[in-house]
Amino acid sequence: MPIAEATRFPHTLFAMIPIKIETESIRTSSRSQMIEVTSLVQKIVSRHNVQEGFVIVHVPHTTAAITINENADPDVKHDMLRKLAEMVPKHESYYQHGEGNSDSHVKTSLVGNSVTVLFTGGRLVLGTWQGIQFCEFDGPRTREMMVRVVSFD
Amino acid sequence: MPIAEATRFPHTLFAMIPIKIETESIRTSSRSQMIEVTSLVQKIVSRHNVQEGFVIVHVPHTTAAITINENADPDVKHDMLRKLAEMVPKHESYYQHGEGNSDSHVKTSLVGNSVTVLFTGGRLVLGTWQGIQFCEFDGPRTREMMVRVVSFD
Amino acid sequence: MPIAEATRFPHTLFAMIPIKIETESIRTSSRSQMIEVTSLVQKIVSRHNVQEGFVIVHVPHTTAAITINENADPDVKHDMLRKLAEMVPKHESYYQHGEGNSDSHVKTSLVGNSVTVLFTGGRLVLGTWQGIQFCEFDGPRTREMMVRVVSFD
Repeated sequence: MPIAEATRFPHTLFAMIPIKIETESIRTSSRSQMIEVTSLVQKIVSRHNVQEGFVIVHVPHTTAAITINENADPDVKHDMLRKLAEMVPKHESYYQHGEGNSDSHVKTSLVGNSVTVLFTGGRLVLGTWQGIQFCEFDGPRTREMMVRVVSFD
Repeated sequence: MPIAEATRFPHTLFAMIPIKIETESIRTSSRSQMIEVTSLVQKIVSRHNVQEGFVIVHVPHTTAAITINENADPDVKHDMLRKLAEMVPKHESYYQHGEGNSDSHVKTSLVGNSVTVLFTGGRLVLGTWQGIQFCEFDGPRTREMMVRVVSFD
Repeated sequence: MPIAEATRFPHTLFAMIPIKIETESIRTSSRSQMIEVTSLVQKIVSRHNVQEGFVIVHVPHTTAAITINENADPDVKHDMLRKLAEMVPKHESYYQHGEGNSDSHVKTSLVGNSVTVLFTGGRLVLGTWQGIQFCEFDGPRTREMMVRVVSFD
């Protein structure tokens, strides 16, 4: 069997499953915070009973981000937020933006506000220590997260 | 009606719309600059009259990036570029690259050179304050942006 | 011919090619290192003989990342790794995580651990100087890279 066949599913073609974008609310409790949302995203995938594809998770804010990092030791989150705060302090003499959250905007573009996560067999493909982490950089607030499941079972 | 059905479109299956990659030119006017390209990307989506999907926007350069951030107050762009320049100065005693733009390369990988943006009902899904921002880090130059519309109407 | 037609392929609709996620091993040789994996990713695309689509490349680690940057002068990699090490040093008085690799976690979220790369005509769409760079931040180790080819020929 040629390699290309071995790596394909035994269907001839897939078709897209027509799933709508779903929106989830996230309540944050401090100015800077990382909240794991892996199970929330997994639940959305599972709900549709789809097997193969990927999810695009988008945070529709300019002072909150999303990343994939440590899901076990909370000290990692502490260290990451602390280092980010040191690299991008809340106050700088040259900031001009009147809202006092220029640091939150910078952190958002450094970390990014969307992730694309694969899934196979209905389960998100993440490493042992990986979790999807919602990053609040100007809280506490009620935030949103938008999820598009793209499946081609 | 079960949840899974409620979140699906009333089609049985979608098929992909066969849209080619489109390339747009962007003229920048200073060494570091953020230029909003939201309407340019929206125009590409609208031109195809597609409703559901996502666009992948890729910047084919190693000293220019793309991010999603503030679309209203220009002071935010000022503050972001200023902070990035302070974190990653143009000159460092240890830089070895002869072109004098090592800082531009670093900034590009920190910010990233592609974004994936959802759309629904033919409109990009962006928060109130979000705009797609092309980031020049070694201009002025004429740059390119490549857009792949993935629609499954 | 209207613009929308001019930018479409002469098919009515595409269907997804049902390709499984593929995993590649990467052996790194120092604590911080950038290893170009463009040809590895291209080989996976070529193996399937697909023409149009994109690949999602995911690094399932929390202390290794992936980015797109300089494929020619190795001095750029040196300068990037050096600057990252200066911005995020291995030791900080406030780090609490016991494994001594908090810096690696921070760098991973700054650079990101997945990239989405377009392809057309069977070839990855990258600029002249762009290469896909696997970024080791806590090596040497044997790492993995997961690749999902999404093609809609």
